[in-house]
Amino acid sequence: MIKKAQRNHVSLRPHFKTHQSNDIGSLFRDRGINSITVSSVAMAEYFIRNGWSDVTVAFPVYPGVTEQLNALSSRCKLNIIFSSMQNMLASINRLTGKIGVFIEINIGHYRSGTASSNTREIALMVNHISRYPNLTFRGFLAHAGHTYTAGSAENIRKIYNSSVSDLIKLKSFWKSSYPDIILSWGDTPSCSLVEELWGIDEIRPGNFVFFDVMQHRIGSCEITDVALALISPVVDVYPESGKMIIHAGAVHLSKEYLTDSSGDSYYGLVCPTDGTTWGNPIEGAVVGKLSQEHGTVTFTDKSAIAFKPGDLIAILPIHSCLTFDTMGAAIATDGTPISSFRTRSPL
Amino acid sequence: MIKKAQRNHVSLRPHFKTHQSNDIGSLFRDRGINSITVSSVAMAEYFIRNGWSDVTVAFPVYPGVTEQLNALSSRCKLNIIFSSMQNMLASINRLTGKIGVFIEINIGHYRSGTASSNTREIALMVNHISRYPNLTFRGFLAHAGHTYTAGSAENIRKIYNSSVSDLIKLKSFWKSSYPDIILSWGDTPSCSLVEELWGIDEIRPGNFVFFDVMQHRIGSCEITDVALALISPVVDVYPESGKMIIHAGAVHLSKEYLTDSSGDSYYGLVCPTDGTTWGNPIEGAVVGKLSQEHGTVTFTDKSAIAFKPGDLIAILPIHSCLTFDTMGAAIATDGTPISSFRTRSPL
Repeated sequence: MIKKAQRNHVSLRPHFKTHQSNDIGSLFRDRGINSITVSSVAMAEYFIRNGWSDVTVAFPVYPGVTEQLNALSSRCKLNIIFSSMQNMLASINRLTGKIGVFIEINIGHYRSGTASSNTREIALMVNHISRYPNLTFRGFLAHAGHTYTAGSAENIRKIYNSSVSDLIKLKSFWKSSYPDIILSWGDTPSCSLVEELWGIDEIRPGNFVFFDVMQHRIGSCEITDVALALISPVVDVYPESGKMIIHAGAVHLSKEYLTDSSGDSYYGLVCPTDGTTWGNPIEGAVVGKLSQEHGTVTFTDKSAIAFKPGDLIAILPIHSCLTFDTMGAAIATDGTPISSFRTRSPL
Repeated sequence: MIKKAQRNHVSLRPHFKTHQSNDIGSLFRDRGINSITVSSVAMAEYFIRNGWSDVTVAFPVYPGVTEQLNALSSRCKLNIIFSSMQNMLASINRLTGKIGVFIEINIGHYRSGTASSNTREIALMVNHISRYPNLTFRGFLAHAGHTYTAGSAENIRKIYNSSVSDLIKLKSFWKSSYPDIILSWGDTPSCSLVEELWGIDEIRPGNFVFFDVMQHRIGSCEITDVALALISPVVDVYPESGKMIIHAGAVHLSKEYLTDSSGDSYYGLVCPTDGTTWGNPIEGAVVGKLSQEHGTVTFTDKSAIAFKPGDLIAILPIHSCLTFDTMGAAIATDGTPISSFRTRSPL
């Protein structure tokens, strides 16, 4: 991703919500990355405490967090986002620190953000921001979350091209008054699958640090690129039913799922492991059911159940961001512990 | 639940996996409950450290936890479960402590456990356990997890009656050799909906301490019985789209969902709140989408969106066990903090 950003002359501001880890953050810093994205003020505080000095909180501001933002703004170069006029008006008076401000544009994901076609609201917002000398209008920020359901690499490239065209119109219009504004672009599928990242100034992918089964399904990565697995003990084996029980439930893996060609849900792929590294997924083996602490691994080929209670398996998660958050602890493939913002006691 | 257990002359051994909290555990102790159920050895350690002296770990033993179990067995009256012959053989040699042993029976949930009809395997297990003087055969344990999808109170009562009949046959057969064995029965739907808990000796419901939207859908409780809500800030409001964005995502609420009559998924119901208590759910308002930190609340009646950024709402979770686990912190309705085994930094 660093090479792709350099080749395309865009800044890489990786989203650290995926790993929430200072140890993994350091891998980026060692490679020359100095600006990051986070998804909450608490997460910003954690990374600023660990020496990061250029942080964008890519989650709309709300009144409950403005005091913390003011405090953080004296400790680093801080950027925030406003997602609409109403969102902005609820908090802008409370912001007293020196803070950079992006307007979030809804480019078709329809989560938060103002539609790029809503030029009147955007103009009201830009002009309102300019009344606050402590705030600097930084530009427009978009998250193309609808790439996750686009269905093909070609559709993802189409989303990229049409959305960036819309964003460029906004930037061109405002550039004469605000020559330093930028376009900030998110989401791992488009940053992975679009080779020519034209028209934008900054990318904020996060998930690519681990990838996962969903990204593999989308086509963002090979399955061998997935860099996070949940190591789980085998608890019981029922060869006649083609299944085994593992100690890995919803509290460890999260309930994110995909559906297979028969419409059945599954929560992860299953790989052999030595406890720290893992091999390729076992054909036809998936985590087919999850309760709080039990996982049920189902095998289409019963003869593939070469496991017994006490063995370990590795599960490739559907959504690595959620699984890293629910895992009790993480280790690198050489066995060293990996720090995490939300580490808690394992169950 | 205490009164129902007394009326039916069954022991109540509540499952503490739902709350994982010593403060909430104390509420039970104050009411005369001295025996509990947990779902992991780490959770057993937590409650034993907090003074609980009669603990059943209702999750099948595996070799990775036997050392901890031996250590815990000297600190309390400890019971474990074996879910099959193979599960038992993998660990039984490693158990050196004085431990009570249940055989888990699969009564139709098809997760872990040996089928009640598999009398040969059960006999081999009972006889094998008897060779270990440190182990005491305690009886048969079952979790009727299939009550969750039974569809009606009548079906749940049918499951209860037929499953208990099967369990009684087992108990009757072994009672002459093991006069003290008991039948231990789990799951909140049946313990809530079956009035006459005949034939069994012990119940292990857990979820009833909070209940949730799923239990309400099943019929186990009224919606006003739900005793857990996730308090979440409103971040942005889009009245024209009938939706608002809240700071409550999959990492706070978990991705457990139900589907409405149109087949759409939802992750929680939405209630007004003063920050500590809450009112009845707003008709037609649900958490319709979840990403890592964003929740999208959708309203069928757009005029019901009487919220602005910074307001708080309360979300009734689909599955309170998972939401209590993912919540960063918990407070009682009088504002006092509630301890939790897995408390971690809020996002």
